Amino acid sequence: MRLYSMPSSGNSYKVRLLLALLGRTVDMVDVEYGSDTLTRAKDEGRLPFGKAPVLELEDGTLLAESNAILFHLGQGTRFWPKDALQQAQVLGWMFWEQNQHEGVIAVRAALLTYPHRKAQATPERLAALLASGQGLLQMMDDHLVSRDWLVGEACSLADLCLYAYTHSAQTHGGFDLTPFPALRAWLDRVAALPGHVGL
Amino acid sequence: MRLYSMPSSGNSYKVRLLLALLGRTVDMVDVEYGSDTLTRAKDEGRLPFGKAPVLELEDGTLLAESNAILFHLGQGTRFWPKDALQQAQVLGWMFWEQNQHEGVIAVRAALLTYPHRKAQATPERLAALLASGQGLLQMMDDHLVSRDWLVGEACSLADLCLYAYTHSAQTHGGFDLTPFPALRAWLDRVAALPGHVGL
Repeated sequence: MRLYSMPSSGNSYKVRLLLALLGRTVDMVDVEYGSDTLTRAKDEGRLPFGKAPVLELEDGTLLAESNAILFHLGQGTRFWPKDALQQAQVLGWMFWEQNQHEGVIAVRAALLTYPHRKAQATPERLAALLASGQGLLQMMDDHLVSRDWLVGEACSLADLCLYAYTHSAQTHGGFDLTPFPALRAWLDRVAALPGHVGL
Repeated sequence: MRLYSMPSSGNSYKVRLLLALLGRTVDMVDVEYGSDTLTRAKDEGRLPFGKAPVLELEDGTLLAESNAILFHLGQGTRFWPKDALQQAQVLGWMFWEQNQHEGVIAVRAALLTYPHRKAQATPERLAALLASGQGLLQMMDDHLVSRDWLVGEACSLADLCLYAYTHSAQTHGGFDLTPFPALRAWLDRVAALPGHVGL
């Protein structure tokens, strides 16, 4: 298998993190913003939705969308619960991540770190994203006050998915994690998993 | 089971559509914007992420996120493929819907139709959403030129999910579907499914 992965992107990182925790290796093609490799991958039709990550399977099938890749690689592993309701709850957090969390937490980090996004980083937009993001992090903290993992009693794909952009929310996105002790303890739990790798 | 459903929302509609196609009925609680029922459902903690739809199971468990509800209700039905790769591809389209499509196609419709969103409906924003949305619809049309359904040889949760906001993109969101004959034929195929209901 081959993973088209953007080194700076949390969406790509979550797949690399799952692979590391599973002790699996795949061919890795780095497609960073502005790189010739990214242009080539797009031109050759390797990125079906125009975005990384994309997992290329042995038969050449291209699987897009970071969370769909997590689902595919996670089947039959300890990160995908056996219980049907828990499966739906795991996916619920992953849909929430793509619909609510990523468009705020990841986007503010992108505006602050990617030179090609700088023109969009107006003070008004940064302030609005900061306020929204602190609210989203509060929701996660509220949920984690009474439990170790987002769903059930074990680390699942939901935790790995949400960890990706949350663990760098403060350093990359300027969010303040101080008010969220349960969230910070959860970040520490994920970071302590055997095989964990950083961004 | 009980569904907290917002009548005007495509996210709620997609769940109602699946239920209708499966010939299933559940208790329906309408939580329209501005209604007392919505306020009450929020105050009573019935909407975990603050949004509809939410499916309340027999044991009181609250399942949020429209696409997670589709996944839960779709297990073991003809709308969830048996093939593992096709399952991941179905979820891929559903994640794409929440991350790319909904934030453009549904948001433009919301800006044009909900009075409480009107202040955000600036000409610049509407123009940007129109341009993005036509591009997203083009991607769907390109994909559907050579196939009847988004994944595999049968209608799946991916089709029902994407149908919800796409079928009203022109009437509610002001998008032009004329350039997309494959997309329009696909909309007609979903509308012709036995048991289909409108928004």
